[in-house]
Amino acid sequence: MPVVVATLTPLDGHVQDVLDAFGVASPLVHAEKGCELYAVHTDGTRVVVVERWTEIEDLQAHSEGTAIGELNRLNAGHLASPADVLVVENVPIGDPRKGTIQ
Amino acid sequence: MPVVVATLTPLDGHVQDVLDAFGVASPLVHAEKGCELYAVHTDGTRVVVVERWTEIEDLQAHSEGTAIGELNRLNAGHLASPADVLVVENVPIGDPRKGTIQ
Repeated sequence: MPVVVATLTPLDGHVQDVLDAFGVASPLVHAEKGCELYAVHTDGTRVVVVERWTEIEDLQAHSEGTAIGELNRLNAGHLASPADVLVVENVPIGDPRKGTIQ
Repeated sequence: MPVVVATLTPLDGHVQDVLDAFGVASPLVHAEKGCELYAVHTDGTRVVVVERWTEIEDLQAHSEGTAIGELNRLNAGHLASPADVLVVENVPIGDPRKGTIQ
């Protein structure tokens, strides 16, 4: 069950543009096969998406799908650098409820 | 309800040492006031912790507490660089269940 942490660095003054792009793309991603979590966050400077997919094949289909294409189109010219995307797996430690994203 | 994404880059050959440090520290963190999520992940190269705290004051107490002190002690000499710690807030978009870490 892959977890993805994607960090985007918008150009100065473009955080809201990037959030608006997710406003369009996230509902499309939520409807994709195997999407269990696709949660957008910001600290006002960077935008961090935490994702979980049922199977690695679902993540692969997502990364080649229309929603991510639309997201990339909307974000064009608004990012200081390419997104930093980490695909990781949970290491269950401690309290099962707090040690794994539910 | 602050969310934290902390990315650690272990030195070559030290990923398991860092995971072992979390094996000690995570159960202590799970017992801290306001810890709702403290989930450890890896891609075999980096270690990514996704956290959620009830209040920003709980996160602040955690960052000054004994568990994080023990984690830093155990990780000494095993990291290529200081941890990259982002403190962010969820931007609820789309499906409430998939758009917010539960």
